[in-house]
Formats: sequence, C-alpha cells, structure tokens
Amino acid sequence: MAFNGRHSEEDSLHEECGVFGVWNVPSAAAVTALGLHALQHRGQEATGITSFDGSRFHSHRGMGLVGDNFGDARVIEKLPGRIAIGHNRYATTGDTILRNVQPLYADFEFGGFAVAHNGNLTNAHLLHRQLVRRGCLFQSTTDSEVFIHLIAISLYSTVVDRLIDALKQVVGAYSLVALSNEALMGVRDPLGVRPLILGRIGSEGTGGWVLASESCALDIVGADFIRDVEPGEIVIINDQGVRSIKPFTRMRERFCVFEYIYFARPDSIVEGTPVYEARKRIGAELAQEAAVPADVIVPVPDSGVPAAMGYSMQSGIPFELGIIRNHYVGRTFIEPTDHIRHLGVKLKHSANKPVLDGKRVVLVDDSIVRGTTSKKIVEMVRAAGAKEVHMRISSPPTTHSCFYGIDTPQRSKLLASTHTVDEMAALIGADSLAFISIDGLYRALGQPGRDPEKPHYCDACFTGDYPIPLPDQHELADRQLSLLSAGN
Amino acid sequence: MAFNGRHSEEDSLHEECGVFGVWNVPSAAAVTALGLHALQHRGQEATGITSFDGSRFHSHRGMGLVGDNFGDARVIEKLPGRIAIGHNRYATTGDTILRNVQPLYADFEFGGFAVAHNGNLTNAHLLHRQLVRRGCLFQSTTDSEVFIHLIAISLYSTVVDRLIDALKQVVGAYSLVALSNEALMGVRDPLGVRPLILGRIGSEGTGGWVLASESCALDIVGADFIRDVEPGEIVIINDQGVRSIKPFTRMRERFCVFEYIYFARPDSIVEGTPVYEARKRIGAELAQEAAVPADVIVPVPDSGVPAAMGYSMQSGIPFELGIIRNHYVGRTFIEPTDHIRHLGVKLKHSANKPVLDGKRVVLVDDSIVRGTTSKKIVEMVRAAGAKEVHMRISSPPTTHSCFYGIDTPQRSKLLASTHTVDEMAALIGADSLAFISIDGLYRALGQPGRDPEKPHYCDACFTGDYPIPLPDQHELADRQLSLLSAGN
Amino acid sequence: MAFNGRHSEEDSLHEECGVFGVWNVPSAAAVTALGLHALQHRGQEATGITSFDGSRFHSHRGMGLVGDNFGDARVIEKLPGRIAIGHNRYATTGDTILRNVQPLYADFEFGGFAVAHNGNLTNAHLLHRQLVRRGCLFQSTTDSEVFIHLIAISLYSTVVDRLIDALKQVVGAYSLVALSNEALMGVRDPLGVRPLILGRIGSEGTGGWVLASESCALDIVGADFIRDVEPGEIVIINDQGVRSIKPFTRMRERFCVFEYIYFARPDSIVEGTPVYEARKRIGAELAQEAAVPADVIVPVPDSGVPAAMGYSMQSGIPFELGIIRNHYVGRTFIEPTDHIRHLGVKLKHSANKPVLDGKRVVLVDDSIVRGTTSKKIVEMVRAAGAKEVHMRISSPPTTHSCFYGIDTPQRSKLLASTHTVDEMAALIGADSLAFISIDGLYRALGQPGRDPEKPHYCDACFTGDYPIPLPDQHELADRQLSLLSAGN
Amino acid sequence: MAFNGRHSEEDSLHEECGVFGVWNVPSAAAVTALGLHALQHRGQEATGITSFDGSRFHSHRGMGLVGDNFGDARVIEKLPGRIAIGHNRYATTGDTILRNVQPLYADFEFGGFAVAHNGNLTNAHLLHRQLVRRGCLFQSTTDSEVFIHLIAISLYSTVVDRLIDALKQVVGAYSLVALSNEALMGVRDPLGVRPLILGRIGSEGTGGWVLASESCALDIVGADFIRDVEPGEIVIINDQGVRSIKPFTRMRERFCVFEYIYFARPDSIVEGTPVYEARKRIGAELAQEAAVPADVIVPVPDSGVPAAMGYSMQSGIPFELGIIRNHYVGRTFIEPTDHIRHLGVKLKHSANKPVLDGKRVVLVDDSIVRGTTSKKIVEMVRAAGAKEVHMRISSPPTTHSCFYGIDTPQRSKLLASTHTVDEMAALIGADSLAFISIDGLYRALGQPGRDPEKPHYCDACFTGDYPIPLPDQHELADRQLSLLSAGN
Repeated sequence: MAFNGRHSEEDSLHEECGVFGVWNVPSAAAVTALGLHALQHRGQEATGITSFDGSRFHSHRGMGLVGDNFGDARVIEKLPGRIAIGHNRYATTGDTILRNVQPLYADFEFGGFAVAHNGNLTNAHLLHRQLVRRGCLFQSTTDSEVFIHLIAISLYSTVVDRLIDALKQVVGAYSLVALSNEALMGVRDPLGVRPLILGRIGSEGTGGWVLASESCALDIVGADFIRDVEPGEIVIINDQGVRSIKPFTRMRERFCVFEYIYFARPDSIVEGTPVYEARKRIGAELAQEAAVPADVIVPVPDSGVPAAMGYSMQSGIPFELGIIRNHYVGRTFIEPTDHIRHLGVKLKHSANKPVLDGKRVVLVDDSIVRGTTSKKIVEMVRAAGAKEVHMRISSPPTTHSCFYGIDTPQRSKLLASTHTVDEMAALIGADSLAFISIDGLYRALGQPGRDPEKPHYCDACFTGDYPIPLPDQHELADRQLSLLSAGN
Repeated sequence: MAFNGRHSEEDSLHEECGVFGVWNVPSAAAVTALGLHALQHRGQEATGITSFDGSRFHSHRGMGLVGDNFGDARVIEKLPGRIAIGHNRYATTGDTILRNVQPLYADFEFGGFAVAHNGNLTNAHLLHRQLVRRGCLFQSTTDSEVFIHLIAISLYSTVVDRLIDALKQVVGAYSLVALSNEALMGVRDPLGVRPLILGRIGSEGTGGWVLASESCALDIVGADFIRDVEPGEIVIINDQGVRSIKPFTRMRERFCVFEYIYFARPDSIVEGTPVYEARKRIGAELAQEAAVPADVIVPVPDSGVPAAMGYSMQSGIPFELGIIRNHYVGRTFIEPTDHIRHLGVKLKHSANKPVLDGKRVVLVDDSIVRGTTSKKIVEMVRAAGAKEVHMRISSPPTTHSCFYGIDTPQRSKLLASTHTVDEMAALIGADSLAFISIDGLYRALGQPGRDPEKPHYCDACFTGDYPIPLPDQHELADRQLSLLSAGN
Repeated sequence: MAFNGRHSEEDSLHEECGVFGVWNVPSAAAVTALGLHALQHRGQEATGITSFDGSRFHSHRGMGLVGDNFGDARVIEKLPGRIAIGHNRYATTGDTILRNVQPLYADFEFGGFAVAHNGNLTNAHLLHRQLVRRGCLFQSTTDSEVFIHLIAISLYSTVVDRLIDALKQVVGAYSLVALSNEALMGVRDPLGVRPLILGRIGSEGTGGWVLASESCALDIVGADFIRDVEPGEIVIINDQGVRSIKPFTRMRERFCVFEYIYFARPDSIVEGTPVYEARKRIGAELAQEAAVPADVIVPVPDSGVPAAMGYSMQSGIPFELGIIRNHYVGRTFIEPTDHIRHLGVKLKHSANKPVLDGKRVVLVDDSIVRGTTSKKIVEMVRAAGAKEVHMRISSPPTTHSCFYGIDTPQRSKLLASTHTVDEMAALIGADSLAFISIDGLYRALGQPGRDPEKPHYCDACFTGDYPIPLPDQHELADRQLSLLSAGN
Repeated sequence: MAFNGRHSEEDSLHEECGVFGVWNVPSAAAVTALGLHALQHRGQEATGITSFDGSRFHSHRGMGLVGDNFGDARVIEKLPGRIAIGHNRYATTGDTILRNVQPLYADFEFGGFAVAHNGNLTNAHLLHRQLVRRGCLFQSTTDSEVFIHLIAISLYSTVVDRLIDALKQVVGAYSLVALSNEALMGVRDPLGVRPLILGRIGSEGTGGWVLASESCALDIVGADFIRDVEPGEIVIINDQGVRSIKPFTRMRERFCVFEYIYFARPDSIVEGTPVYEARKRIGAELAQEAAVPADVIVPVPDSGVPAAMGYSMQSGIPFELGIIRNHYVGRTFIEPTDHIRHLGVKLKHSANKPVLDGKRVVLVDDSIVRGTTSKKIVEMVRAAGAKEVHMRISSPPTTHSCFYGIDTPQRSKLLASTHTVDEMAALIGADSLAFISIDGLYRALGQPGRDPEKPHYCDACFTGDYPIPLPDQHELADRQLSLLSAGN
C-alpha cells in the first residue's frame, strides 16, 4: 500500500487459518475451543472466539495456542451462550498484532456481526483502497475487515442479502463462518479451494450444528459428519435448521491439492478421501515412479511419515525412524551466536545414528520450498554415517506462489522455480532427488491423471494454472511497470 | 445505546482529559511525554502519544501513568520525529480498555490523521447512530472516533476543510489537538468551555510550537506562553507559522468555572488568572461570607489547601495541616473484609491528632458531591478529639450534572440536588456547613457577581444553566418517555 | 515432614531431570541451552543454567521450556564464560516454585559452588532433619540443597574432599554435575541407576568437555561420545583434562531398565545399546510372547511407536498410524464443564477412523500406570469402529513405586499392584491384554534372561527388588507404626 | 565481600524500613497491610507479610507498594490467621531482588520463625564471614539473614533464649519484629536509635497487640498507643499478655534525631513529641537564628512544609505554595535524551510563577545531601522571576554518613563534608544559605541545647559522634590499609 502518511504497523493481508462455528449446544465457547484445538495445526499464532448468548456478543482473542488462551475455565465463563464461532491464525508474518486476530466483530445498524475466515481475497488491496476512498476507517489489515466493511455499507436490508452483496464483490479462495443475532452462516468460495464441512452435534431433536475447516474437529466434540459445504454455497443455520443458498454461477470445483499433501490433519477426511490413506498412496506412487536401491526408508517427521510408509510398503524396503523430532521447541529459540551458528544446529530434528550409519537412505518429505531445510537434513543424515542419501518428495516441484491462502514465499525464492531437479539435488547434497509427477499425484488421489482442460484440483503452486483471477497482483505489476517507465 | 446485539464491552462516551501537541522540536515524543506528565492531574487512567517523522506516523498507547508508559527511553525511540500529539485519559468508568485510549489514528485517502480530545460531545450518540446507519464501523466508544468518522466521510478535499465540516456537525464542549501529514491543529469549542493554550518552544527563528490543556505543561518543557486559543478558533501550525480560522459564529465565552475551583493545577494560569491566587481569593471570600469562631483552619488535602490558606488569612485563624495525605495509595487497595470495613479506614487521609485534639476546627474542601468522603473526614476529625467541626466549601452546592467533560454522577446522586444545606450538615455530621455563594465565587474571580443575563462562566453544575444544547440527553428523555407511554 | 510450624509451601523432595555441563567452549551457556533442549523430554517444568566466567558465577532460572527461557540471545549474554552447567526439571508435583529450580548455587568460604542433579536421595528426609537440628537453614525442598549443605559443613578443605564427604553420607540413585571455581564435576551413584555420559567438544588440542544425561545432547552440540561415567565414579574436569576418582566400594551395576522402555530419547545410546533398537526388539519379543490374530498394529504415540514397529515386523501384521497425536496442547487446558467432561475428550490423541473402522486392532503402549489413559484410548479406538482391541504393553506390569527418580504414584494407585492381568483387561475394556515378561524384557536387551541372584538392571518397579536402601521410607513406616501403637 | 567466586547478584546489606506486627486480631494480614500502608513513607521498594494461623506460617512478598501487593483480597485470603508481621523496604540500592524482601522465614528444629527488621547491623559483614566459614548458606544479602542464622545455630533451646543469644552477638541500630509458633516479639536496639512502639487493638478483655515503627500505623487500624518499646527491651507477646526482658546493660538512650527532621510521618508522635509540632518549632528556631528580609516563605514540598510554616509564623513573612509537587511520578521516568536533559527538567516540582515573580523568596527545605536537587530548585525559582532566593535548612549540615539505617551516601559525596556554608550557597546559586545550629535543633526539640558529654540524640550525621561501634567499617579500613601497604 502506498499512502502518503502510512502508519507504522503495516502487515500482510494474507491469512491461512482454521475456522469453527457451532449453533445450539451448551457451553458453545468450550465446544469451539475444543474444535479449534483439533484445528491447531492450521494456525498457532493467535486464536479467538466470539459467542452469542441470545442478546449480547462476547469476544476473547489472544496470541498463541488455543490451550493457552481458552484452557482456563474462567475465560470460557466470560463467553456464555449456545452459539459461537472461532478462529486459529497461522504465522504468516512476524508483525501480527492483537487487533488482527479474528473473529472480527462489528456493531451494525441491524445488530452485531462477527466473522472469521480462512483463505485469501485476491482483490483485497483494490477493495481496501476503494473503501478508504469512500471514508471507511480500517483498524486491521485483514481480509476479514474488507469483508465486514462491504457488509456495513451494503444497501440491502437483511444480513443475508448484505452478505451476498459483499461476496459478489470479493474475489479469492476462502471459507468463512459468520454470526449474526439470527443465524450462524458458513460460506465456501465458488471454486471450493478452501475446505469447510458441516456436522451435527447432540441428539436429533434437540441438537445443534457445527461448521469446521476439517472433519477432525468434529471427532473431538463428538459431532457427526454430514457433508462438505459445497463450493459457492452459503449455509444459514438457525433453530429452523440449515438453509442453503447458492448465489454464484456454478463453476467446476478446484479443491486445493496441497491440503492432501501437507496442510490437512492425517485423520481428517477431505472431500470424501481420508488424508492418511491419500498420503500413503502418494508415497506408493512415488516409489513406483522413482525407485532406488536402498537399505532404509526414513521419513522427515512428522509430515513425511505416511508417504514414507507408502513408499516402504511399495518398495519392500524397511521403514525406520531415522530422524527424531523434538516437539518441545517452545515459543522462540536461540538467536544463535556465531559459534552456535557454525554448529548448524537443527532444533527440531536429530539423527538417529544407529539406524543411518553405513546405510543407503531414502528420505521422504512432503515438499521443497526454499531448500534450506532439506540441505540441513541431508547434511545431518550424512553426518550420522549414511552411505547414500536419496531424497523423495511427495509433491511435484513447487514452482509457483500460492495466492489462495497457503503461505508460500515469492516465486523468486522457490528453489524449483529457478533450478532443475538435478541442480536441486546438487544444492541440497543428495545423491538423487525425485518428485512425484503431477499425473502420479492425481492418480494417487483416485483421478485418471491430470486433465489439462479440466483439472480436478487447484494445483497452481505446481503448474502455474491459477483458477481464480489475481487483480491485486496485476495492479501491483502495472504499478511497478509504470514506475519503471517513469524511471526511464 | 440500544442495539439488538450489542457487544459486551460497552463503555461511556464520556471523556475528561489532558491534551498536548508539539510542532518542530527535537525528540517531539519525549517533549510530549513531559507535557503529559505535567497534565497528569487531568487523567491517570491511560495515556498515548502519536508522532510523525515526516513520512510515517508512530503510536504508543497504554493504561496507567505517563511515566509508567513513556519513562522508558526505548519506548520514546520508537516514536521518532519532530512532531507529536499526546493524551491523558481520566478514569470515568471502570470499563476502559486499550482500544479507547487516545490519540486515535486513521489512514485516510489523503494520508494519516491522529486526534486527541478533551471534553464531551453532547450529540455523540445521535451522530454515532447516524454514522453506523451509513455503514461506518466503530472500534472504540470515544467521542474522538465519532469525530474521525465525520472527517473520513466528508466530501471536502483538504484536511482543514474536512475538519471544519466535521466540527460544524458536532455539538459540545471540547478542546482537541490533531495531526496530519501537513499540520498540527488545535481546536477549542465555540464557547471555550474547555481550555487550550498556545506556546512557543525553542529560539525565535528555528523554534517550534506547543498546544496544551494548561500552562503548567509549557513550564516543564521550557516553552513560553503565547495566548489562549480562542473559543471557536482553529489554529493550524506548520513550518510557515500559525494560521487561525474561526469558522463558527462568534458567541459569548463561557469558560468552565470548575477548572478554577478544582480541576486545573494551582500553578497554571487560566484565561489570564493564576489558579492558585484564584483559590486563595475564593477562600477569603468564603471566610467573609461564612465566618465562624474557631481555633484552627484545616484543609482537606491536597485540593483544599489554597482556599484554606485564603480563609485563614482573611479570618486570622491559624492554618494547620490537621489532615495528612498518604500519596502512596498504589493502583488498587483492600477489598476490605467485614472486620476491616468496620474500622472505617481512610487510606488517603489520616488525622494529625495533636493539631485537632480539643480544638474548634474549620475544615475547608473544594466541593461536596455524594457526601460520603466528607462524612468520613468529619468522623475522623472528631475521633481525633476536635471539639467542633465546621465544614466550609469553596464552591456553591453541586446541584446539577456536567455534560461538558467533568466527571459528575447523575443528578439524583448529587447530595445538594436533594438536600438543603442544613440537611447536608446533619448528614455529614458537621456542626455547621457553608458553601460560597455563586456571586461570591464570581467576585473572587474578579467579576462583579453573576449577571444572570450574561454569565461569564459555564456554571451549569451549580446553576443548571446549560449554555450548550444537550441533544443526546433530550433524545434519551424522549425515548424513556415513549417507553413509559408504551408501558401504559 | 512433621515440624510444628511448617511453612505453607511444602513440596516433594523428588526429582527427575536432565543435567548437562560443559568445560571450555565458547558461549558455554548457549551450548548448555542446546544440550538442555535435546534433554527437554527429561523435564519440561523448569530449567536453569549457571555459568562461570573465570571470576564470577551467573545464573538464570525459570519455569517452562528451555526455548522459552534461553531462546532469547539477551538472556544468554548475561551468562558469560566458557564453563556452564544446566538442568531441566520434570513436573513431579504441582507445587513447584522458582526457588526449587536448579542449578542450586551457594557461596562457600572457598568460593562459589553450583550443582544440578537428576535422581532421588532415599535418605534426604533424615539428612534434612539432622541438618536443620544442626542449625542449617533450608530455602528449597530439593535433594540438591541437602547435598549443598553437606558440602558447606564438611570439615575437609578442598572442594573435591568435601564433595566425597557429602557423597558418602547420601544414599540414593542420582547423577549430578557440579561447578566450582576450579573444576566441572560429574558424579554417578554407586549402582549407576541414573545415566551420565562424558563427551568431547571442539578440536583435540583446544577443545572442551561435556557431561550429559544422554548421548542425544552430544549430537546437537557437535560433541563426540567418549564413554559413560561409571557407576560410583567422580569425574573432575579442568584445563589439565579429566581426572577420575572412585571413592565407593565397587558394586555390581544396576542401570534403570525403564530408561530403555520409556524415559530415554530413542536416538540416545544408553550403556552401549541404542534405545530405538532396544524398543523395537522389545516389541518383537512381545509379539512372540503374546501373539494375537489381528488386522493392524497401532502404536499409542509417541512412546509406543518403536515397540509397535517391532511387533509388526515380528508378527507380519501391518503397522498403521491409527492414533494421531496433537502436539499443540499448550501449557494448560480446559477445566471442563460438565457438558465437556461427558464428551470424554482426549486432547492429546485422536482416532484415525479409516484405519481402525472394522479392524481387529493391536494397540502397543509402553506401560500401564493407573489405567485411566489406557481406558480412554481403548474407548476411543472402539468408538472409531474397531472390531477387536488387543492391548500389548512393552514392559512388565508396574507393581511397585520407584524411589530412585522416576515419577510413579504410590503403590496403592498402581493398577497392576492390585489387579490381575485379566482384571486389568476388563477394566480398560480390551479384548485381551498382555505385558512382556521380565525375562523377555531382559532377552530383548541382550541378556540371557533375569538372573534373580545377579539381575543386570534396576527393575524394582516390576519386581519389588530395591537395590538401594530406603531409609526415609522405613523411618516413615516406623513413625506410622508408632502412631498406630500410640493410638491403642 | 571478597570471595573468589562471588555470584553476580551482589547487594547492599543496608536496610531502612518500616515494620509492623499484630497478635490476636481477626484478619491479621489485612490489619498488617493497613499498618504497612501507613508506614509506606518508610519504604516503597518492596513489601511482605507473614501470617501464622496456629499451625502453619503463610508468606507473600513482592516488589512495589503495599496496595499493589496486598490490595487484592485474594492475596489476603491466602494469609490466614490472627497473628502476622510485615515489612516495607526502602530503595537503598538498585539491585534489590525478591529474595531480599522481608519478612525472612526459616524452619527451625523447634518450628517456624519469621523476622522483619528496620535498621542496620554494623558488624553484619564480619558475622556473615564467620557464619559462611562455619558452613552456613546465605540466600539473601540482608542483615536479617545474619540474624536468623545466629538463631539457627544457637545452642540454647527456647526461641527467646536463642533470640537473646543472637542479639548479644550483633552490633547496630535496629528495631525488629519476629514471630514464632508461640509468640510475637519486638526488639529495640540498646541505644534505641530506631523507633518501635507498642499498641493495643480491640476491646480490653479479648483484644490484641500491635507493634509498629510509628504511631501513625496505630491510628489507621484503630489501635491505641500504649508506650514506646524501650531501648534494649524485648517484648514477648502471647495470649498471656506482654512480657518484657532487658538482656542488655542499660545505656543512655540516643534516639535518631533525623526521624524528627525528615523520616517520620508528621502525624506520628515519636518518643512523646508530635513530629509536626517539632518541625514547626525547628522552623521557628531557624527563623530566629537566620532571619533575612523577604516577601514570601516557600517550602520545598512535601517535607519542608511544617518547618516553612514555623519559619513564616516566627518571621511574620507570608507562607506561600511557590513550588507545586507532582505526585504522579510513576515507577520510572525518562532516561532523558540530550535535548531533554538540557531542559533541566524537574519531574517532581514545578514553580508557581505568580507567587515567585519579582519576590524575595526564602526557600525552606529539610536537608542538603549532594546539593544537586537544591541547585535545580534554586534555578527553577529564579527562572520563575524571584528577585532573591534565600535557602534555609531545618537541619545542621550533613557532614557524616549514617551507618545506622538512614540511606546517606559516602561521606565524600556529602556536600557539607567538603564545603563551607558559603561555598555551598555559591554552588547551589542561592543569595544566602543557612542551616539550623545543632544547639538550635536540640532546643526546638525541648532540650537545653546539645550536651557534648551526654547528647540526648544520635546526631552522628551532623556531628560525627557515632554512639555505636562500627566493626565492619574498621575492618574495611584495615583491609584497605593493608592493601595500600602491600602495594608499596
């Protein structure tokens, strides 16, 4: 953003998160805290809950884990009511501050309104600029606030009409849960890039409803899976039940394939497919595509484990825990002194020497982004005595940035965007390196391979095929271009 | 406010405060911190500073004293620039929260804008409702935010035109300092109820300018008093100097008389009159109006001291420190057990027995609001052995609430609004009680008495003569009335 | 303890911990922080480091993880020097307070002295009482302070002689690292129940020395394993190298077998045996001893994983991650409301339904203590659709309390001390339950089985054969007995 | 202290404080908190309370004011019992840390024991060294811990005998309150340098007892003054009443004259003399000794006020509040930038210009220590327009350090130890400067002047006549001397 007198707390508009909402259950805030706890892998930076007790809204938001903020019963007591929504925020930038923590709340003329969202609006900057020009005052730098201003200034009279009015102006990949005096609402973007599911909690007659980013959040609260919210669908939940509105032109679904590879929890079932099984099948497919003689298959924990199991099963080479993960990393760690930096310390991983010493090792990981972690891991495994180190990756090369809500760096910093696979192997120090093919990935997920005309998933990070327009990016490019021209 | 789904952090819109601003001085934030420290008596609850370094605005706000928030040089370092404004907030309600702390900042289309204000808008609720209806989202519950929204949505193009546009829509008693990319601005309400002064800092050619609630804030930063900002005047300060705009129809000034009696610091000079001298003269006038044979004149410290000195001087009865004030009360104290409550503990005051024992005592205090403190003080003085206790008050009876920025309770809780002076004397346990007359007060301040046609001061709390309309109060009354009708 | 006027901060004298020490390395405190990080699994409750810069000692201690306390470079900067010791404390009781956090430091006549210890003195209460009788003032309730008082009052003149004097008075299982002006010292108890290893850091000529509870702490700091400190050995490290003293009568070693089963990190090599391999062999042995027809082998993560892999390998039944562990539990969590409690929420574990549904499941865990966790896990697995649930435990039944430094509850609360295996199976709801036999455990660790005359390990928790006397326990029993007699 | 390996948290052994104790009153801890609040002027740095509920001792200690630590009823609830002692600590050094905060508590063989003390032991270093040599471990650096070790190692069997044994080994000026299972004890040093009084609380038959540093602490809790504890007296309070022991050879009393001049609160009655009256008489005496033609008498607030009133009364020159004190200084303030430093900011005081402008001003203050504050005050008064500034001091020149518990700097830093009065006047910029004479001071306090053979007060800071030996100082001098010799 390029305002003249910009305030010094600038922040990304980018968001990757977990959302949860519940209608008609006792201790709705406590249930929401549990749901958010199960979605903790989708965001550990900050968390918040807004409850509604029938007449008033109550909010608590804080930095850190769900348990650190909502573990205390006294906090939960201050969030009364049978209705609540909640949010986990992912650490995309270092600058995050409390006023960016969701759910966002606003008093409208028609009453209170709270919203929490996962994903990314690709025209947020453009909308932000228009709204400021109109006299809207922004307190945060989140997409959610763009959204809430659009609702506030809408000329329609009902909440749902205003919501639709706002949705029609935004472009992007998102799931959101929202709460008004009258209803719990869930929305999924027209292509269904980001996930959102609907569940039932409590007994049939008296029970309530749950919305969540993933099915694992249903299990912990004892709710039953009903169905995925459909791409482009708005579900409106009140005591009369669930109503569905589909205000957008129907488009072909493009679910985010990276949720299968990395982001979703292994015990979730996403779009009908168990994530754990999918990962094992990807590993097996990878073993077929990129076999190599070896003594042990070793996962980079924790995310590489199911793929490594699949690889081991398919190849017949034993699966071993050759790398141990230290889960006690705490909030922060060592800004190392020079001496410490030379040690090349890996705080999260350590080599299990007896398993690696003298062995030909296949390492299985989910992706290579910048390559720095892979380089350290390979070094560590060699230092532990491995004779050969073969790296196998359960995704195709990450060549493009994601603008739809997954935190990837700028394209120029993606190793695969500027290096061949052989160059990458040399750079990370592996004896060989292989990625699963994009068709292999589709096959592992039960598709016949990738149909370039009608690809089933959003796989832009591997293919550059962006299914949703990127107005902010184009506008940014235009501005840089004009700066360049001006510079001549 | 009566929205359906009101959020549970409701707060008063009421504000009493100290404001300070400085243009073109090194370490503007440090200078502002010192100025705010000298204005600490105008608000101890919270404090904030926004500086401008020529390209960016920087803010720090916190609960508590100026020294606790800005005593640390590292905080000051994060507020660079030669321009800054600051604010102290008074504890009007228990619910105050950080997002209500001023200065308020907003990014407008034309750049950043910060504002801090002292006083009260009497149509803030009405404006708030209109703005929400228009789609404005409120983050705080302060008058300042009403103001900032009015600027944001103004159709004028320059900051100053938008400021005037906003000022013409608000009604109330206020002083404000504001900061844009281009200027430091100061505004005083059309009747000049709340104070604001202009000072010069640094050498003639290179020096800068100061705006402050009181002159005592000039002394601490080594600035010279130039003049009071005039009622209804906008001063616009930039490197070209000070420009003055008077957008309002000229009205007769009605400065708040309670600033003389209690609120201003004794070493300030307010509207040309030294506060300390004024208080001594009020005490002397009171001694003439309400003489009583006695052995000692004892002030209720600290605010009663100058009036007691004036009373002693006039009456010839010795002035003695018969009550000692404990200044170390800390942030909170004892929620007493029953046993402790029976002790009737006075944490702030203690009796100096040898001075009081066996004496006829005249106690001098500045006002009686609810009467509870006076009752405790009289009891304490009697327990210390006083033979007689005569209470003398250096203001007329407080019979009406203030809606212009002084924190007084609802009228029904003002002792003087429901009791005669004799009843009050009986209630607080004094042998006699007297207040200065309204004419006596005017005389002590150099006026010929109060001219009911053209009173020189705002004295609404003593007379009920409210010089500024109260739209919010009338609207509230209307609503209550219609509720009553509806109830029939 | 039964003093008349006991102070209300009573605490256990019990300790289970990780210790680390380093001599002659740049940034010794940073190196120690890394070593403690690798030992984080031995204690997450509190941590501390004392460094020595050649003339002064410097300490920092705090509650929580190593990274939370020593991740900040500014903290490390305040701990200068090339010599340091550190400590991680395990949460044995809820009452732990900062003054109990180690290392403990004292100024002696001959200079400063710091000590950190892992383990438990079995005559600490008796010694404590004697020392108090002699006029010693205790500040903490740790065994380390008993130890430090014994050194303080010793009549010997050198630090080492005083250390030996103190060691000869204590009974128990312990490893300790200590620091004086002149040397880094390491001590292991006469039977070698608790582990301690010696490593070399830096290049041969100029390099330094490391002491640590486990070898995994060497890897992270780039040190090489030299040897285990021997049972009953004192190693004294200074710039002249490592000196060894063995002041105790030589006894047969009895290393803690539970370190292999659970406590040590899988990538550590303990007494020459890799822990990970040992756990896999235990699993394999268990599969031979207690085979059962099944579809999947599922570990209770994380500690059950290697044993489950061994079980799977031996039995040929596939290994699957049927239970997912949530590592983001945070510091505290939900004091559940009644509604939440009924959900039987498992915050750390969730079932991976697709893996379990309709299957005959073998669950592999490391031990059953009270049985409550096992019961919840079995319930969860059944709720996920498992047809049969067979529990296999990679240790013999835990029938006795540990008094040597492992946190086990009182004997009466150990499920296996009061129930048969069949009763336990019924209680936890498993279709079958089996523990590895004590001989099987010894075989898996490379022994020919347990020789009751000369058992190789301390296995008191499984056999009741306590190799170190328990004076405090006997004295306690005597006192209770005399109370009973007195009661007649 | 000169140990080889000294720990880096070194601290002064120096203490100036307020103490309070109560026997047999409901909510003893709450009563103690109130008493400590009234004694807050004797120490604002830290505070602590230890209560005894008949079977256990309970402690809470913290940095900061009494209200900040004990204002919360939940803290008080954790300190049950009808018996308690408490302590306020004065900020003598910047290094104070929580483990130095009193009361100190220890578990002895015979039960718990807590002690709080005001004053200074002049042989604390020597005793400390002896005790460390004997094997005693020190946790704090307070005189109280020396004392508590002496009690711990005493060979006597009863608490009282051990207390006497310890008292006979210490040299110094002190008041202490102590608590065992059986009694509340109060002790005053043999010369009675530091104050301690006894009061009665509650009704005659059932009531309890209070010990306090000053009588103002009785008033706030509704207790009656009984008598000063006598020099060298131990009072032992239990349910049988008050027992008195005088274990020392009787010596002539030497009460600290500086308590009258500055330290005690004006509403306290010390050794039978009201402090406020004493200060007024000192001011009057000063007016006689050092008259000067002037227009106004202006106190340096707050401590100079009564003396200025006495001076005004005697001289007939009007008393005016020409300097205003800002009581809201907060915990910390501005580490000034260069720009701010040049302003010569006085955060605590500001000039009341209209009172000073054009006037001949007599400033009255209680003492000149380093002279820096006086210099700033004189500058400020001149800058406000004063024609002449005459400084009058209500104590003789402070030429010597206090080793008996008042925080004075080293002798070399005392302005009066190295400058004549005329030099001092020039240095602080006053037109004239005068101190009260030592005989004038004695006369104002009702003595016939100072009898050099038998002075009534401890006035060492003015005369260098130290009535209590200074073993630590002599030993320090000896060591420095031998270092000098060694240097030859």
